[in-house]
Amino acid sequence: MTGKIIPDIVVSRLPVYLQTLQRFAKEGETTTSSKELGERSCITAAQVRKDLSFFGEFGKQGSGYNIVFLSDQIRSILKINRGWDVALVGVGDLGHAIARYPGFAERGFRIVFVFDNDPTKIGTKIGKHTILPTEIMVETIKNAGITVALITVPSRAAQAVADQLVQAGIKAILNYAQASLNVPDHIRVETVSPILQLQHMMYYL
Amino acid sequence: MTGKIIPDIVVSRLPVYLQTLQRFAKEGETTTSSKELGERSCITAAQVRKDLSFFGEFGKQGSGYNIVFLSDQIRSILKINRGWDVALVGVGDLGHAIARYPGFAERGFRIVFVFDNDPTKIGTKIGKHTILPTEIMVETIKNAGITVALITVPSRAAQAVADQLVQAGIKAILNYAQASLNVPDHIRVETVSPILQLQHMMYYL
Repeated sequence: MTGKIIPDIVVSRLPVYLQTLQRFAKEGETTTSSKELGERSCITAAQVRKDLSFFGEFGKQGSGYNIVFLSDQIRSILKINRGWDVALVGVGDLGHAIARYPGFAERGFRIVFVFDNDPTKIGTKIGKHTILPTEIMVETIKNAGITVALITVPSRAAQAVADQLVQAGIKAILNYAQASLNVPDHIRVETVSPILQLQHMMYYL
Repeated sequence: MTGKIIPDIVVSRLPVYLQTLQRFAKEGETTTSSKELGERSCITAAQVRKDLSFFGEFGKQGSGYNIVFLSDQIRSILKINRGWDVALVGVGDLGHAIARYPGFAERGFRIVFVFDNDPTKIGTKIGKHTILPTEIMVETIKNAGITVALITVPSRAAQAVADQLVQAGIKAILNYAQASLNVPDHIRVETVSPILQLQHMMYYL
């Protein structure tokens, strides 16, 4: 890892490679090639090699990539070789489903606080979490040093929540609301947009 | 719309432009420019112009794009100027949330059938839907001529469900399961991958 700037599109493909590598490992494979890794990731072999070369030399000429080693390297590059504590804001149907979904914790994203502003929900339990009032959100997140948050509030409330999260020291937001968020440049936002994905596919029908 | 092949990456940006145009319309705007449209969509003005030029001449030199007109054109290109009936498979926490979420219907994706294989769920109501047994899924979808489906079953069940959906005549699948689906080439699959989005952001923390 030198100081050079890596294009974001390259970084965005690393989780895809990692997912494919994990599948190969599950299938009992121990080594792979850029061809194989590319095919299963729907990316060309040349692109795989180019992407990985930004970060170092991970394969051996002729023998390909060791799956465990390359997975570890990608986890380390993405800083997901450690766990991340996450705050969830908004316990509607979707927030409820996410708070109970084990998949995030299994990949190292541990939901540690769940917030809502509905007095009938505050204090109730969702899985092992007690729903906390948004009034104490900024303070609670700040004190715990949490930097990752999921927004699952209605669209109209999303910007106000994002503003509070930024104030609380959050650096990365996964936004499930159908709203674009204005945040300072140093804050990362990714939006989950299933409707845009559906619209994209309709072109081909 | 001529017979030329449009790169998929271009098609994938159309829903993003449409979303931005809808925001401008909501804000009371009637015209926009490639610069403005690009800025709010996080895409360069040159790219906006190039993307739209694949489909025709939508703007006037000097006066920009009419927002209503361009929105209509994009909807027509994406074939979302009509409604689409959708089948939902899997009524766990997430499927439950989606079945009750009005956002899909508001964008023209009307969930008309909800399936599950759990005998304790079959026959019960979720919103206005009665949960149907997966045994009658292929037949029901085929008879109704539905071509779009959402998969919200656990990962281990996703491939078997996808196989059945293909058999039923489904052409586009929005896959919420953390599993890659093997489907024939003429079937479109988009995967909702919030965990990959989180992993991507961690690089920057």
